[in-house]
Order: sequence, then C-alpha cells, then structure tokens
Amino acid sequence: MRKIALLGSTGSIGTSTLAVVAEHPDEFCITAMAAGNNVDLLVEQVQLFTPELVSVGSEKAAVELQGRLHGKKPEIVWGEQGLLDVAAHADAEFVMTAVVGSVGVAPTLAAIRAGKTIGLANKETLVTAGHIVMEAARENKVTILPVDSEHAAIFQCLQGEHRGDVERIIITASGGSFRHKKREELKNVTVQDALNHPNWSMGAKITIDSATMMNKGFEVIEAHWLFDMPYEQIDCLLHYESIIHSMVEYKDRAVMAQLGTPDMKVPIQYALTYPRRTNLATERLDLAKLSTLHFAEMDYERYPLLRLAFDCGKASGTLPAVLNAANEIAVARFLRGEITFLAIEKIVEQACVAHTPVLNPDLETIMAADAWARQFAAGNAGV
Amino acid sequence: MRKIALLGSTGSIGTSTLAVVAEHPDEFCITAMAAGNNVDLLVEQVQLFTPELVSVGSEKAAVELQGRLHGKKPEIVWGEQGLLDVAAHADAEFVMTAVVGSVGVAPTLAAIRAGKTIGLANKETLVTAGHIVMEAARENKVTILPVDSEHAAIFQCLQGEHRGDVERIIITASGGSFRHKKREELKNVTVQDALNHPNWSMGAKITIDSATMMNKGFEVIEAHWLFDMPYEQIDCLLHYESIIHSMVEYKDRAVMAQLGTPDMKVPIQYALTYPRRTNLATERLDLAKLSTLHFAEMDYERYPLLRLAFDCGKASGTLPAVLNAANEIAVARFLRGEITFLAIEKIVEQACVAHTPVLNPDLETIMAADAWARQFAAGNAGV
Repeated sequence: MRKIALLGSTGSIGTSTLAVVAEHPDEFCITAMAAGNNVDLLVEQVQLFTPELVSVGSEKAAVELQGRLHGKKPEIVWGEQGLLDVAAHADAEFVMTAVVGSVGVAPTLAAIRAGKTIGLANKETLVTAGHIVMEAARENKVTILPVDSEHAAIFQCLQGEHRGDVERIIITASGGSFRHKKREELKNVTVQDALNHPNWSMGAKITIDSATMMNKGFEVIEAHWLFDMPYEQIDCLLHYESIIHSMVEYKDRAVMAQLGTPDMKVPIQYALTYPRRTNLATERLDLAKLSTLHFAEMDYERYPLLRLAFDCGKASGTLPAVLNAANEIAVARFLRGEITFLAIEKIVEQACVAHTPVLNPDLETIMAADAWARQFAAGNAGV
Repeated sequence: MRKIALLGSTGSIGTSTLAVVAEHPDEFCITAMAAGNNVDLLVEQVQLFTPELVSVGSEKAAVELQGRLHGKKPEIVWGEQGLLDVAAHADAEFVMTAVVGSVGVAPTLAAIRAGKTIGLANKETLVTAGHIVMEAARENKVTILPVDSEHAAIFQCLQGEHRGDVERIIITASGGSFRHKKREELKNVTVQDALNHPNWSMGAKITIDSATMMNKGFEVIEAHWLFDMPYEQIDCLLHYESIIHSMVEYKDRAVMAQLGTPDMKVPIQYALTYPRRTNLATERLDLAKLSTLHFAEMDYERYPLLRLAFDCGKASGTLPAVLNAANEIAVARFLRGEITFLAIEKIVEQACVAHTPVLNPDLETIMAADAWARQFAAGNAGV
C-alpha cells in the first residue's frame, strides 16, 4: 500500500490523482491532502479518502471544513504551514505536488528534504527554482517523477537508455486554443475562446498558458532541469492532436515516443507505479480511428513567449521566476477581463526586460524577484 | 573492438551492415563473412574489410574468389558447411545472420550454440524453427537482437519495462507496393510494379512479401517468439509512411513507439551497440516536413496471407515452415514470370491446407516439411 500526500487535491491534477487512487484501493491510499478554499469538494474528498491530515487555504476554510465533516475527522491545518505539514507528513512515502503557481516551491522542497518520492505536477517549482530543487533532490537521494504529460513521455522514452546517448528532446505542442489564428486575429479574442482547448480538459491557468505557448516555455525550462539537458538540445514541435506526448531523439537518429489519448490519469498513475505499470480505465489509443497525425514546425514569431522562455532559461538566475510570476498575474488579469489576450505577452516581456537579474539566487532572492514581478505585472497595462 | 561474423554480406542487410562497420572502424570489424555467388561484390568487400574467413555458395565461386583476390588472402570455404564455419568462427563475438530463406536456420543455431550474440535479420529462422531457436538461446544464454525494423522498434519500446506490463504489440505495415489497389486490381500486376516499394529499398523477395503482406505475417510469428507474446496480443496497423516502425501498448494504455526515417542502418547499428547508441550518418527524422502520418485498420480480407500467418502461427508445429517454404518458391516463381501475383497467395494457401502438420517438430522434421512444401509449390499452378 503506497501512502500518498496530495498537494492540490481539488484541482485538475488533484482530482485525477484521486480517481487513480480510487481505481486501485489496494495499492494506494491518501494519507494527507491539501487544497485551497473549495470546501464543498474537499468535504467529499475527505469522506471518500479518509486522510489523517488535511490542509486548507485559510483558517476560515478550516473552521468550515471542521464543521461539515462527520464521524472520525482528520487533523485540519491551514495556510503555508499547513501545506508544508502535508508535504512532509510522516506517513507519506510519495508526495504529489499538484498545486498551481510558485506557492508549490516551498512544499515541494519540504517533501524532498523529508525524503519523499515526488510526483511533480507543479510547473513553477522547476521553472523558478530548478537549480535549488534538483540539488536538494540529489542531496536527499529523492526521485522526482514528472507528471506533466510531456515530461512523463520524455521520462518514459529515456527508460533503459543512457542519457549520454540522447541527441535532443522534442516536446510536442498542440498549439492551444488559437492555433489556427494568426497574430493579427488575436487582438479581440475573449476569455471564453481562450479557455476552449482543442485536446485537453485542464485548469484555466494552464489552458491560457497553452494558448500563449507560455506553458510550452515552462515545459522547456522544466525539461532542462529534469533531464539535465542543455537548451540547445530541446526542441518544440507543433502536433495538433496531442497524441504523441513528446519524443527523444538519440544519437543514432532513432526517435522514441510516448503516445496515448489525452488523459492525465496515465502520467499520474505511471508516477505512482513507476517503474512498473498497472491497468487503468482509460480510452485505448486507436490510431486507425484517428487516421492522421499532423505536425508542423514551431513558429517562434507566432509564439513570442516560447522564445522568451528559452532566453530566460538560458539566462537562468532570477529571470525564469520573473517570467513565471509576471505571467501568473497577467493571466489572472486576463481571466478577470482586465486586459486583452495579447497584453499577457506584453506584460511578461516588459517584466523580463525591466528586471535586474541575479545569478545563482537562493530561495529568498527568487521569492523577492517573484514578488517584484507580480507587482510589476499587476500595475502594467500591457500596451 | 567488436568482432563480427556476417552471414549474407552481399545482400541488402549485409551491405548496410558493412556500411555501419565502415563508419565505425574503431568499434567494429568483420572477422568472417559469407555470401552466395556475387563474387564481384564479394571481392570488393573482402579487400575493404579483410576478414579472416570467407564462405561462398559453391566451390566454383570459391575458386573464382581465390583467383581474384590480391595480397593477404582470407581462408575461403563454401556451401552449407562454409556458412556454419562462418557462423561459429572462433574470433567472432557477434553474428549477423542476414541470409535470406530457411537456409539461415542451421547457421543461426550454430552461432547460438557457439555462444555468439545474434543480430537476427533472417526471418525464416524464427518463422520455421522458433521453438528450437529460442530454446537454444535460453540454454546457451545468448542474446538475440532483432534487426528487422519492426522488431528492433518493439525491442526498443520494451527497454526498461517489464514484459508482464505489456498489453499488446502493434506492428506497423506500410501496405506494400499495391496498398492503394483493391484485390480485383491485382490480377494483372507485373513483377516490376510489385518491386516498387513505397518506402523501403529492400531485396526483391521481401519487397514481394510486403506487397502480399506475407512479410508482416512472418513478422507476427517472429514477434511471438522473440518477445514471448501470445498471438492474441499482437496486432497489425496500416501506417503508410513507415515512420513509426512499431509500438508497444502497456496495461496503463501508454503506447511507446520507435520512429525514424526508413534506413536499415539504424536497427543494424543498434543491434551492434546495444544497450548503448552511437552516432550514425543517416537522415534525421523531420516530422514537421513530413507534416502528416496516416493510419488505417489492417484489412485481413485484402491481405489473406497475413490472416493465414496468424492461423499457422497459432497452429504452430510444422505449419509455419510450410507457409514460409511454399511462399519462398511461389515468390521466386512470380519473380521469374511463371505465375501471377495472386497465384502466390493461392499456392501458399493450398500448401498449408494440403500439409499434414506435425506438432513440436525437431529440426529434421521441419526441414522435411520445408522440402515437401517447396516441391508442392513448385508443381502447383496456383489457380
């Protein structure tokens, strides 16, 4: 029985993780979970999965949860410290970090320092603090298993191979909601249009990040850290159907790929069962029915945030944290209807230009850059 | 320096193997080689690769080769015994069995019994005597590395995985020269039409076998033996571009695939460098340039020899040997213009029906069934 601490239980990856656990009650259990303020859903989850420890976003939510639970209740904690308590919960052997945003960095580090195996679904952890997180994982001999479909695919393509034999990593990108639109057609797109992802059903933030290709940029930076791969050996390829989740080209020009229907339960379960696999109730890939897979060269003019991500990644230091934090605020503002879709790019670009980068930053410096970028992005019109 | 004995040096796989060796003169050398009667090419090859032992098809060819070589000459042998001598050559550590036809069975077994690592490019070895060959490999603790692009792909997709986690093997098939023709359009096709394979440049026999899908049938039987996989877990998929060389679906519905441009040097070199990889001068796969990959369900009505191969494989015993031998003769007769394209199917089917199968045959019984099928196919009009 694998005991799991789940950070971000009410989000998209969180609920999929619980679906996987529910499908294999003899193999997995949830010993601790953390969520924000969706108490309605959390009440259901706690009653179904009976964790020992639950953390919520605020004291108010904690009180509400306490009042709405019946029978044997878990210990309930809240806030940043609550998240850290769940991440380092003594009984948990595996920590799934599925919170969204740079709030995921500290608990991921706490879980690593507590020697847990990490299922990493929080992009910002490696984007903002890759050098610190990977160093901590090495020091604590902790395995980080990527849960993003692209990185899980790359990880699978690397099984049984030698890293030194890799020529390049090829990250596939669907192109997002606006993939058939030209830049000039993006001026007046709405939030609702942007949230309509062609292949994946995901959270709002990541769906917008897919439309701007910022998401792919974060994945490039993540891949750099996860697989110790220079940026020159990371390529992106447009692949509209999101069936090939990513690929690895080797020195002999053989290309290994991982394919499947778009279901996050597959990489989630793989992280939980690695290096083995087990049955999963998900749709079987039927290439004959799909009939065609399409590919096109990545267009870095069309998607300037992807190019910016490569630049920030190569520059390293605090720049990736600024890229991420400015984007987080800009996307939230777009979702609130405060700015246009194209203003997201503008704000993020301007934040990266305005920032004075610090090389080899510690976590405090990263968080300071993150805070600076948030402020910058909040007060910038993006024009 | 890996010392290689090469069986079938003047054929398609043989010359590609020599091209790989020539590209890595510090890693590989040819210590022994065997060919048929193409003395012109063999003279060149011997002078370039300076093996210690060379076998040719006949005494006449041996005498001719002896006369045409200059300087330090290799030992020259011939015939069946010559092939066995090359296969078990004391200095060779790796034996590439790239002869075409059931003539490859005995030398492959000899190489296995001599403890050599096997690069298996001779289909008939496993098709006709799979149970004997795999048993010999287990007994002699010999690794058999598949060189066929499909099996090499499957083998790569299995690296780092557990065989028990495999749901099914998916062998891709281009559909061969006549893939866009219906059965009624096949009545009057010519040898030249049949030899015009859309993706691969291969020998004549295997190109015809691709057009009838017999080749895919042999691959199914080979895959059964190589990967210890029940026929129920082997599927075929039409994939016109031959870019995905084959796939493995796991229990969690994740599908691993190996892709590349159609160049046999890739699987040949992989067999030689396994489990590592090294650089190879071959075209890089450019999916963006290809733009689309196409897939369709295998049509077992259109390709009856593929269905027959499944049936013969499941029936096991001497039937796969009969399937192979009858096909070998029928294809040779088609290539000589003696019979029509569709008569190949007829002759092979009739041979399988007329044969009285023997279960669990020894090599002698297999060879008797092989001889019987050849005689049957030679004297059958295929109508």
